[in-house]
Amino acid sequence: MNQEENLLFKISTPEDLRKLNPTDLVRVCSELRQFIIEMVSRNPGHLGASLGVVELTVALHYVFNTPYDKIIWDVGHQAYGHKIITGRRDRFSTNRMYKGISGFPKMSESEYDAFGTGHSSTSISAALGMAVAAKRKGEKRQVVAVIGDGAMTAGEAFEGLNNAGIAKSDLLVILNDNNIAIDPNVGALKEYLIDITTSGTYNRFRNKIWNLLGRFNRLGPNARTLASQLEAGFKSTILDKSNLFEGLNFRYFGPIDGHDILHLTSVLQDLKRIPGPKLLHCLTVKGKGLKPAEENQTAYHAPGKFDSRTGVIIKTSNSGTPPTYQEVFGKSLLELARENEKIVGITPAMTTGCSMCIVNEELPDRIFDVGIAEQHAVTFSAGLATQGTIPYCNIYSSFIQRAYDQVIHDVALQNLHVVFCIDRGGLVGTDGATHHGFFDLAFMRSIPNMIVSAPMNSLELRNMLYTAQLEKNARPFSIRYPKGNGMVTDWHRPFEETEIGKARLISEGKDIAVLSIGHPGNFVIEAASKVASEGIAVTHWDMRFLSPLDAEALHSVFKRFRNIITVEDGVLKGGLGSAVIEFMCDNGYNARIRRLGIPDYFVEHGTQEELIRECGFDADSIAAVIREMVDGR
Amino acid sequence: MNQEENLLFKISTPEDLRKLNPTDLVRVCSELRQFIIEMVSRNPGHLGASLGVVELTVALHYVFNTPYDKIIWDVGHQAYGHKIITGRRDRFSTNRMYKGISGFPKMSESEYDAFGTGHSSTSISAALGMAVAAKRKGEKRQVVAVIGDGAMTAGEAFEGLNNAGIAKSDLLVILNDNNIAIDPNVGALKEYLIDITTSGTYNRFRNKIWNLLGRFNRLGPNARTLASQLEAGFKSTILDKSNLFEGLNFRYFGPIDGHDILHLTSVLQDLKRIPGPKLLHCLTVKGKGLKPAEENQTAYHAPGKFDSRTGVIIKTSNSGTPPTYQEVFGKSLLELARENEKIVGITPAMTTGCSMCIVNEELPDRIFDVGIAEQHAVTFSAGLATQGTIPYCNIYSSFIQRAYDQVIHDVALQNLHVVFCIDRGGLVGTDGATHHGFFDLAFMRSIPNMIVSAPMNSLELRNMLYTAQLEKNARPFSIRYPKGNGMVTDWHRPFEETEIGKARLISEGKDIAVLSIGHPGNFVIEAASKVASEGIAVTHWDMRFLSPLDAEALHSVFKRFRNIITVEDGVLKGGLGSAVIEFMCDNGYNARIRRLGIPDYFVEHGTQEELIRECGFDADSIAAVIREMVDGR
Repeated sequence: MNQEENLLFKISTPEDLRKLNPTDLVRVCSELRQFIIEMVSRNPGHLGASLGVVELTVALHYVFNTPYDKIIWDVGHQAYGHKIITGRRDRFSTNRMYKGISGFPKMSESEYDAFGTGHSSTSISAALGMAVAAKRKGEKRQVVAVIGDGAMTAGEAFEGLNNAGIAKSDLLVILNDNNIAIDPNVGALKEYLIDITTSGTYNRFRNKIWNLLGRFNRLGPNARTLASQLEAGFKSTILDKSNLFEGLNFRYFGPIDGHDILHLTSVLQDLKRIPGPKLLHCLTVKGKGLKPAEENQTAYHAPGKFDSRTGVIIKTSNSGTPPTYQEVFGKSLLELARENEKIVGITPAMTTGCSMCIVNEELPDRIFDVGIAEQHAVTFSAGLATQGTIPYCNIYSSFIQRAYDQVIHDVALQNLHVVFCIDRGGLVGTDGATHHGFFDLAFMRSIPNMIVSAPMNSLELRNMLYTAQLEKNARPFSIRYPKGNGMVTDWHRPFEETEIGKARLISEGKDIAVLSIGHPGNFVIEAASKVASEGIAVTHWDMRFLSPLDAEALHSVFKRFRNIITVEDGVLKGGLGSAVIEFMCDNGYNARIRRLGIPDYFVEHGTQEELIRECGFDADSIAAVIREMVDGR
Repeated sequence: MNQEENLLFKISTPEDLRKLNPTDLVRVCSELRQFIIEMVSRNPGHLGASLGVVELTVALHYVFNTPYDKIIWDVGHQAYGHKIITGRRDRFSTNRMYKGISGFPKMSESEYDAFGTGHSSTSISAALGMAVAAKRKGEKRQVVAVIGDGAMTAGEAFEGLNNAGIAKSDLLVILNDNNIAIDPNVGALKEYLIDITTSGTYNRFRNKIWNLLGRFNRLGPNARTLASQLEAGFKSTILDKSNLFEGLNFRYFGPIDGHDILHLTSVLQDLKRIPGPKLLHCLTVKGKGLKPAEENQTAYHAPGKFDSRTGVIIKTSNSGTPPTYQEVFGKSLLELARENEKIVGITPAMTTGCSMCIVNEELPDRIFDVGIAEQHAVTFSAGLATQGTIPYCNIYSSFIQRAYDQVIHDVALQNLHVVFCIDRGGLVGTDGATHHGFFDLAFMRSIPNMIVSAPMNSLELRNMLYTAQLEKNARPFSIRYPKGNGMVTDWHRPFEETEIGKARLISEGKDIAVLSIGHPGNFVIEAASKVASEGIAVTHWDMRFLSPLDAEALHSVFKRFRNIITVEDGVLKGGLGSAVIEFMCDNGYNARIRRLGIPDYFVEHGTQEELIRECGFDADSIAAVIREMVDGR
C-alpha cells in the first residue's frame, strides 16, 4: 500500500473519518479490509468476524460521536477494524503479542473501547447500564451494542433485551446476523432469523399488507368494513407483536445489507433520531472480502498465518510434534462413544474448538451443539444424566464460569454422572485475560461430590476420559486440560483405568518433593532433570486428582520431606497448593511449602511460554525454587 | 378434616388419583388446597406458589403417567401439592424441618421428584435432557416443565427454549403465568404476556382473522384474489411467527384458566397427543383460595405462621430482638443514597427479600429490579459503573453463583466500582441445600482486584456499606452477610469508615488465637466467655476482610500463638482457613491450626442453629475446640 494515496492512513481517530465525504467511505472500507487481511495474515488472530463488520465499523464511527457516544462490541474479536481507526493502526502489528495491544476491546487501552468484551453476550446489558447512567445525568449520549446472531442465543442477551424493553432508554442494538458463531449457529432463534430474512423483509411485508387493505377499500362499503375490522385486529394484536424483538418492546428495523456502507450510514443517521430501545438487523458475511474466508468460515475464524493475496492458509509442519490435547480428546471420545452407547457429547457452540467435530463426523446423533448457552448445556446434561445417559459436557474453563451455579445446583448437589471436560484450563496464551482458565481448579475443588482431575499429558487425558465413563465412577467428574500441545506422541494406546484419587509417582529423590497437577508436571520433569545434574534428587508426584486428594501419597511426602513445592496452572488462591497445605494442617504436619501457579492479578496476553515464565512455573523457575529451597543457592 | 370423608386421604400415590372420576377432581383440589393452607399455617413455608398450582398439580398427575412421565417443577417451592399427593402427605408436617422432608423437589426423596429444583429457570433445560434421553432409548415418555412467568425471564429459560425449538423432542412447557415472582414480575416479557392475554386470546384472534378472510371470499372474485394474497402472506410470515414462543418453534396454546381443573385436564389430554415442543400458557393466581394471600401476594409468598381460617398472619413479638441484617441494609442504603447521588440499587427480583423495597419506597428511581436475571444484573451494574454511577448490586450468595463469570469478566477484570451486597451468605436454614450460601467466600477470594468483606454484625455491615461508596475505595467491593438477626440493637449510629484490609481485635488473651470472619465472630465471643471462666484467655480477631487479608494482624498472631482456630460460615475448602494457612506457609510460620466451617458435603435443611451445630462452629463447638487445643481437655 502506498501510504500517500491511502485514506486509511489519514485516519488517526474517528474525528478524521468524520471529516470525509460519505462517498469516500467505500474506499475507506476497502482499505481497512485490506489492512486487516494483511496484518492478520502475518500476525495471526481473529479474521472472519472483523472482516464481516468492516462497513459497520466505519459507519458507526462515521455517524456516532465516539468516544462520547459508546459502541460496545460483543465478544470483542470483531473489533480489529475498530481498533485500527481509533488510534491503534500503528500498534496493530503487536496485536495479541506479549506487552502488545489486546485482541479484544479493553477499557484501559483506549477511551474508544467503551467496555471490555471477550465472553459473549454481555453487550446489551453493559450498553443498557451506560444508557441508564446517561439518562440519569441528563446526557444525550448514544449507546450502541453490536451483537452477533450466535451471541444472541445466550441467556444473558435475552435478559438484557427483556430489561431494556421496559427501561425506555435510548439504546441501539445492532444484530450482526451472519448465521455463524465459530461453527454454524444453531437454535430456534437462528431459524427464526432466517425466516424473517428469506420470506421477504418484515417491513416490506407490512407495507404489502397495508396496500392490500387499501385496495379492499375500493371494493365497496362491505369490504371496507371488513378491511377496517381486519386492520384494527392487526394493529392491536398481530403487527405490534409480530416480531420477536418487537414482542420484547424493541422497535425492529431491517434486515438490511450490512455491507452497503452508504445505506448503512443513512439508516444509522435515521435511527439516531428515534428514541427508546431499537434493534437493527444487519445481514453480513463472516470473512467478507476474502474468498476462502467467506467459503470456509469456521476455518477462517482464526486461521493462523495465510497468504494475504490468495487467502491460502500456510500450513506449519507438525511432523514429529505431538497432537494437541483437543485432538486426542476428540479421537478418544469417538472410540469411547463407539463402545459405550450411553455416551453423548454436549458442546455450547465449540464443536470445532474442542474437537467434538471428530465425533460428530462419524456419530452425528451423539453430539449436541446447544449454541452459546453454557448454563443450558450443563442443566441439559444433568437432565440426560437422570436417565442414565452419560454426557461429556465440554466447556472452556473461562466459559464454565458462566455455568458455575448449574454445575453446583443441577449436577453436584444431585450427584449426577456428568463428565465435565474443561478445555483451555490455565493460561491460554494470545487470547489473554478474558480467556485464561485461571479459576476452575479453585472453584471446582470447593464443590462436594465432584471429582476434580487434571491429566498431565494427552495419554493421561485419554485414560481419564475412559475412567470417567465406568459405572463405578458414576458421579460428577471433571477433567481439566490446557490448550495446545499434548506432550505425548505415542498416545494411542489401549485404554487404561485410572484409580480415582490416586497420584502417580514420577520420580523419587531424597532432597525435595514437588507435587504438580496437570500439564505443568512436564515442566517439573524438566526442572528435576536440570537439578539432577547438580546433584539434587527430586521426588515428583503427578497428583492427577485435586479432589479427592491422594492422602496416602501426601502422608508419605509429609513424613519424609521438609521442603515441598506445589505447581499448578491456576490461581494460587484456593488451588492445589491450598489443598496441600490444608491437608498438612489438618494432619498436624509441618513443612516449608512453596506454591507456584498464577498470582493474584489478571495476567494479560502473550504466548503460553511467555506467560508461564511471567507467573514463574516454567522449568527454569521451578528449578530455581528447588535450588533455593534445597540449599539456598 | 374428617379423614373418612376425605378424598385426599385416599390418595397415597397418583395411581390412586387416576382411579377417580374427572368430576371428583374439583373436590380433590379443594381438599388439597385446604390441606396446604392448614399445614403451612402451622409449619411455615412457601404458601402462595403452591396454592396457585393446585389444579395444575392434580391435572398433571391425573393425565400423565407419573413417575414414568416426568414433571419438573421450576424453582420448586410450588411443589407442596405435588409432594402431598405423591406419598408424602403424612410426612408433610416435617416440611423444611431438620431431618424432615425438603421444601423443594429432591430426587433422593421420591421417584416422583424428577429433578431437584431450588434455583429458578432450570426446568426447560432439564426436561429437554430427559426428553432427548427418552427419544434415544425409544421410550414414549412424556416430559413436562412447569415454569412461572418470573422464572421465564432468566436467561437459562431462553437458552432452553432456543435449543428445544430445534430438538423436535416431545416436550411440554407449562407457563404458569401469575404475573408475579416474589415481588411483581418485571420486564418486557411480562408486558408481552399481559398483552397477549388481555387483547383477546391469540387463538381467538387467529380464528377471527380466518373468518374475516372467509367473508371476503363472498364479495366476489376481486376480493377473493386479494384475500388469498393476504392469507398467503399471513400464513408464511405473520401468523406462523406472530407469537414469541412460536417464533422459537414452540406450538403455543392458551392462555387458559389454570384453575379450571376440568378444562385443564382435557387440554392436557389433547396436548399429550401432539408431538414436538409445545407451550401451554396457563393463567393462575398466586395464593389462590386464601383471600389475604391473593390480595397481598408478596407477603404471602412465605408468610410465616398464620390463622388457617382467616389467613391473618400471626405476628411474633420482636420487641428487644435486634433488626435483621436485611433491614439494616435497606435503611442504611437509603441514608447513603440520600447523601450520595451516584448510588443506585440493583436487584434481580429480590426487592423485598433483600430490603431494597425500603429504598424503593422513598427513591423509586434509584432502584432497578431487573427481574430474575443475575447475569444481566451484574453486567448492567458494570455498565453503570463505567459512567461513574455506583451500583449496589444485591444478590443472594447462592444466586450470585449464576453470575460468577460476569463478576470476574465484567467487573473485576475491568476493576469497576461495583458494590456486591451478597445476602444469605452461609447457612440459610430451612430452605436447605439449594439455598445455602456455601461457596461465595471461597470463590470471591480467588478473584484479583476484588475486596472481599464480611461484617460481623449489622452495625459493621452499615459501616461497610458506607465505606464501599467512598471514592478512594472505587474498585470491586463485596460485602457478605447472612440471613436473619443482625445481633446489634443499637445499630443506628453515625457512619464510620472501615479501613480496607484491617481486622478488628475483639479480645486479647494469651492462650489461643481465634480468627473469624462474618457473623460467626459472635459465636467466638460466646465461646471465649465460656472458656474464660475456666481460665483460658482467648485472643479474638474479627478479620472483616478475606481479601486483602490483614497481614499485620496475622503476623502478630503467628508470632505469638502456637494454637490458632479459624471460624467461618462457608466451605472449608478454599475459605478463610485456607487463606490463613496460605499466609502462614508463604511467610514461613508454623502453627497448629483448626479450621471450623462448612465441611465437604451438601448440608441439608433445618434451623440455622441446628445446621451450625451440625457443622461444628456454634459457640459450644468452638469452646470445645479451644479446650482441646489449649490443654487437651
